[in-house]
Amino acid sequence: MVDVAPRTRAEHSEQTVAVDAEVDAQLAETTGEASVDVESLARQLLGTWAEVRRSAREFTKNPELHDIPGLTLDEQRERTLGQLRLLVEHGAVHRAFPKSVGGLEDNGGNITAFEELVAADPSLQIKSGVQWGLFGSAVMHLGTEYHHTTFLPDIMSLKVPGAFAMTETGHGSDVASVATTATYDPATREFVFSTPFRVAWKDYLGIAGKHGVAATVFAQLITGGVNHGVHCFYVPIRDENLQFLPGIGGEDDGLKGGLNGIDNGRLHFSDVRIPRQNLLNKYGDVAEDGTYSSSIDSPGRRFFTMLGTLVQGRVSLDGAAAAVSAMALAIAVTYGNQRRQFTAGSDTDEEVILDYQRHQRRLIPRLATTYAMNFAHDEFLVKFDSVFSGKADSDGDRQDLETLAAALKPLSTWAALDILQEAREACGGAGYLAENRLVGLRADLDVFVTFEGDNNVLLQLVAKRLLTDFSSKFKNADAGALARYVVEQTANRAYHGTGLRTLTQTVRDFGSTARSVHELRGTNTQRELLTDRVETMIAELAQKLRPASRMSKADAAALFNSQQNELIEAARAHGELLQWEAFTRALERVEDAGTKQVLSWLHDVFGLGLVEKHLAWYLIHGRLSPRRAQAVSAYIDRLISRLRPHAQDLVDAFGYEPEHLRATIATGVEAERQAEARAYYAALRASGNAPVDEKTLKTKASKSR
Amino acid sequence: MVDVAPRTRAEHSEQTVAVDAEVDAQLAETTGEASVDVESLARQLLGTWAEVRRSAREFTKNPELHDIPGLTLDEQRERTLGQLRLLVEHGAVHRAFPKSVGGLEDNGGNITAFEELVAADPSLQIKSGVQWGLFGSAVMHLGTEYHHTTFLPDIMSLKVPGAFAMTETGHGSDVASVATTATYDPATREFVFSTPFRVAWKDYLGIAGKHGVAATVFAQLITGGVNHGVHCFYVPIRDENLQFLPGIGGEDDGLKGGLNGIDNGRLHFSDVRIPRQNLLNKYGDVAEDGTYSSSIDSPGRRFFTMLGTLVQGRVSLDGAAAAVSAMALAIAVTYGNQRRQFTAGSDTDEEVILDYQRHQRRLIPRLATTYAMNFAHDEFLVKFDSVFSGKADSDGDRQDLETLAAALKPLSTWAALDILQEAREACGGAGYLAENRLVGLRADLDVFVTFEGDNNVLLQLVAKRLLTDFSSKFKNADAGALARYVVEQTANRAYHGTGLRTLTQTVRDFGSTARSVHELRGTNTQRELLTDRVETMIAELAQKLRPASRMSKADAAALFNSQQNELIEAARAHGELLQWEAFTRALERVEDAGTKQVLSWLHDVFGLGLVEKHLAWYLIHGRLSPRRAQAVSAYIDRLISRLRPHAQDLVDAFGYEPEHLRATIATGVEAERQAEARAYYAALRASGNAPVDEKTLKTKASKSR
Repeated sequence: MVDVAPRTRAEHSEQTVAVDAEVDAQLAETTGEASVDVESLARQLLGTWAEVRRSAREFTKNPELHDIPGLTLDEQRERTLGQLRLLVEHGAVHRAFPKSVGGLEDNGGNITAFEELVAADPSLQIKSGVQWGLFGSAVMHLGTEYHHTTFLPDIMSLKVPGAFAMTETGHGSDVASVATTATYDPATREFVFSTPFRVAWKDYLGIAGKHGVAATVFAQLITGGVNHGVHCFYVPIRDENLQFLPGIGGEDDGLKGGLNGIDNGRLHFSDVRIPRQNLLNKYGDVAEDGTYSSSIDSPGRRFFTMLGTLVQGRVSLDGAAAAVSAMALAIAVTYGNQRRQFTAGSDTDEEVILDYQRHQRRLIPRLATTYAMNFAHDEFLVKFDSVFSGKADSDGDRQDLETLAAALKPLSTWAALDILQEAREACGGAGYLAENRLVGLRADLDVFVTFEGDNNVLLQLVAKRLLTDFSSKFKNADAGALARYVVEQTANRAYHGTGLRTLTQTVRDFGSTARSVHELRGTNTQRELLTDRVETMIAELAQKLRPASRMSKADAAALFNSQQNELIEAARAHGELLQWEAFTRALERVEDAGTKQVLSWLHDVFGLGLVEKHLAWYLIHGRLSPRRAQAVSAYIDRLISRLRPHAQDLVDAFGYEPEHLRATIATGVEAERQAEARAYYAALRASGNAPVDEKTLKTKASKSR
Repeated sequence: MVDVAPRTRAEHSEQTVAVDAEVDAQLAETTGEASVDVESLARQLLGTWAEVRRSAREFTKNPELHDIPGLTLDEQRERTLGQLRLLVEHGAVHRAFPKSVGGLEDNGGNITAFEELVAADPSLQIKSGVQWGLFGSAVMHLGTEYHHTTFLPDIMSLKVPGAFAMTETGHGSDVASVATTATYDPATREFVFSTPFRVAWKDYLGIAGKHGVAATVFAQLITGGVNHGVHCFYVPIRDENLQFLPGIGGEDDGLKGGLNGIDNGRLHFSDVRIPRQNLLNKYGDVAEDGTYSSSIDSPGRRFFTMLGTLVQGRVSLDGAAAAVSAMALAIAVTYGNQRRQFTAGSDTDEEVILDYQRHQRRLIPRLATTYAMNFAHDEFLVKFDSVFSGKADSDGDRQDLETLAAALKPLSTWAALDILQEAREACGGAGYLAENRLVGLRADLDVFVTFEGDNNVLLQLVAKRLLTDFSSKFKNADAGALARYVVEQTANRAYHGTGLRTLTQTVRDFGSTARSVHELRGTNTQRELLTDRVETMIAELAQKLRPASRMSKADAAALFNSQQNELIEAARAHGELLQWEAFTRALERVEDAGTKQVLSWLHDVFGLGLVEKHLAWYLIHGRLSPRRAQAVSAYIDRLISRLRPHAQDLVDAFGYEPEHLRATIATGVEAERQAEARAYYAALRASGNAPVDEKTLKTKASKSR
């Protein structure tokens, strides 16, 4: 039989049966009894800063740090501010700051501890992120010694709560175009701040709505009639009574979809004057006479260098998203393992809902994604730490870190919303109650997908980087070079590579499902499939976009725009590959054999799940034959059944305890009350006093007739 | 060239270029200038009960009916209860009730008006749905004249707020297994209610948390030692001071993810006695001596008949989901048409964000889905009305209605959450503010996907019905008959049908992209593709499940469970086909030529969007060649660009006014402030006082060197 698509339903049915049987046969070889060593897996999941993470988790058990659903806006804001003071008291937030002001200069540890705050309350996490991760970090990374000694102590102690005033109503993603101006006045040696129109109001700023007494304000620096681009300034905004200082106005952003412990607000400036020294001048300075100077000559590079110092927000959101996904699945899997509904295969016993295939299909692939996210995050954190500690901080390292951030943060934050929602639905009506946490966490994390870089915009940056890397090889080549490269590249990979050779070959050769399934299980095959897709997408895009270099600006923009969706999808494919690679490396480090077996199934569910998600692409591009494509889903189905008995272990290994989850349905109460009901009915049946069902009577009557 | 998957990247690139060119050529024929007649389209969208809908929309403009974000739980509950009183005052809620008690017996009109309440406040809608659509409807549909005259007047006037006590903590989807018992005591001629254990507590009941003074309680009816299954009873639960009556206890469910105007709660019963007459006895009665009687002999059929009378909840959720999706897109498209970000093709003008391809890809297919949902909902409403008015209410009609409800409600409620979320993200940080409505609506609608029938459970019911219909043909046939049928069926359709013939043929024949694209545009082709998928999925499932009839109960359940995911996907495919068919019929009714052209593009985006979503299936099953599969996405991309200029008209035609949307960003304010900024910069440039960019200076300097 030629291995192309079957033409009739009967042919297809035959194929299906064959595929299923071969998948079973292949899996049978590798099964046996496997079990997860929860403790060692939990240790691995704690990651590189395991001790910091463990102690941060202990710290977040403190009920004073927990959110209380249903507070009014004012109450919640005050409570969160009070919690920030607790963080200061416990020295929980100073790890990243310079040793000169009492910090530890421990960047990786700082983010590790910070992201665990999400288990206490996302509002607390993000409000502390605004204070110390944005406002404080801007002073630290963009300022110099004067600013550190002058401003950091009061920022660290929370004596000065502050806002990070970058975004404007009119400019969020395009920060380079913010409209607020800071014009140097050499006569008074001051910068004069001005908000020229309504969309230039600073907006959505945490801690600006009510509590902030200062802000790090991003504005176009103008001196001597020249605009040197966006720079950051330290600007006092309120007096000790929390009244705006002269020239400053603003508005409260009011209630939000979540994170209401944070007082977001708007600010605007009418000829607000600050001393020259308040320019955070690490990357650009203005002398008393108004002369501008910078260590970075290119205004573009200078701007991106300044922004790059603030990448930690994306790092920590990635970590928090992975953490919350783990919590959500811990809740839903625990409940799914205890909750019962419908008798299916029995007359008396109802099924545990996680035994239903659909329920497994909803939760277990998401568990695989959560493992991938957690492993990828730890590598991300290590990379971040090595750049910020100076261990490896070349321009290339910094760019790689930013690309990594731009690829991982969108994927993990979107995944967290998807996982929270599926977990909430999997818990039914119970999932909708605030007491079970899922709705509150989802509401709080919603904004993660659009702040600290809109996910779609970030992915577009990733795609541009991938295109640049790809195209740099052809910079000075003639028009045909790229096309030739593409052909050669594909030819090489398709016919001489190890993995793809056989994959593409079988498009027309005689199909062997056994070999198909065997190969799909191989790490190299998965890597080839995922890598090939990214490379092919980028190569195709490069070819389509090549004419842009000879076009007018408008035409080039239109051409680029016509491929924007595909660009973003290519970047997503790249991010998925990064997650898969991190999972692969983590799997290699597992020592316990049983754990390794179970995790390898989970790894395959993740890798093949990505292939399944993009199956049409693989078919259209001839990378998978229809028969092999069908084996992908069949294999995933079987892996999921195999993983089902280990689902509880796999969520337990995340290490979140009742004080973190705080969800009634995940406390074991469901198991207790289900047991109570079953015991009641068993006793009733044994007593002989149970009412007879009308249906049973009718069946008997009809039989005796 | 044989039309199978290309083997190399170069082959694929050639194919891509060819496909794109052919798609363009095909579309060029049909383009020309089209414009939407917003008024006539709006009239069509109002549906069958257009006047009722129009006046309900006028009514919901009343600010007293609107939600106020940020109220405390108690404040919101009280406000919503007060709004219910306003509904009574305005006679807004009595359309469905019997004429004997002052109603109109207008079922379609009642639901039409009811679903529009969602624009005022989903809490108001659902709380009134509990009072009159569930509590009141149970009395109306399950009770008889005595109950109508005794209970309905106070229910209609809200003198008696009441709960609908069906779900228990332990039983939501499986209502037949609720554990509350109502045992008849002939000595006192009373029913005695008992809650045997914790999971038998009634739970998640709207109006039971605080305001309810009575409830329609579902319990196992036991008389003379026989359990006659679940019946519904009218049970007073609180006194005039809102204290529980003796024997009744309960708990407040507290804060929820949304809909906090509704006081959900739990109830339990300890030997609570109610008069025999309080059994709502339309479908089953108990005589004074305890003798049970029913007009429906089969206990199973009786149960489903009783539940079937309560289908209107699903009808109205489908309508509300369609309405909210329209509102969300009206907000996001309006904002997307005014908001600007990044200069792309120009030095001075920023792009309107809806001009970005990705933004279009995010919103326009969802607009197509929303049109499909709205058209499908109107047909659903007509079907509902014809059953409940008695125009067409055979058993078959009722079953069809329930299957329709079980297919459409899941699709529309899931789509609404997806659309609300994409709209919120498309509005960035502004989308996260409560003042722009999207987050509040999403929070409120979240529970729509799991209440009134969990979406996954409903789809499984649909699949079972499809399987039953399919298998009834083979009930008494031998084992091979089904297999033979499948072969014949496929052979007939594949070689003699009009649409599929050419589709399947081209898998191996010489591909003509022109013909491919031309055919994809055809309504018949889309119908064949969508229909064939449903039929094939069901036929394959039937064949796989066939051995179940010869298996033990446990084995059969396991076999069924192994196909559960696929069953649910088949049901989803069926629902999608229903939506597509409704859109197709609605398109046929459009008279204005320009509107018809634009809507036909939108229709194709919906139909081909479904094909694209399941593209791997079509490829694996040989229904589309790789080349034609590629044309699907290329064609959708081009249709989306063509629809982009009409996006505002298409959302305006939904007819929601500022008083309904109440979103700051959809008021036109964004256009005003963007214009202000552009005018400012234009004036600054004209004045000659604009600061020079450092970048410009550097470029000049390097050129002059």
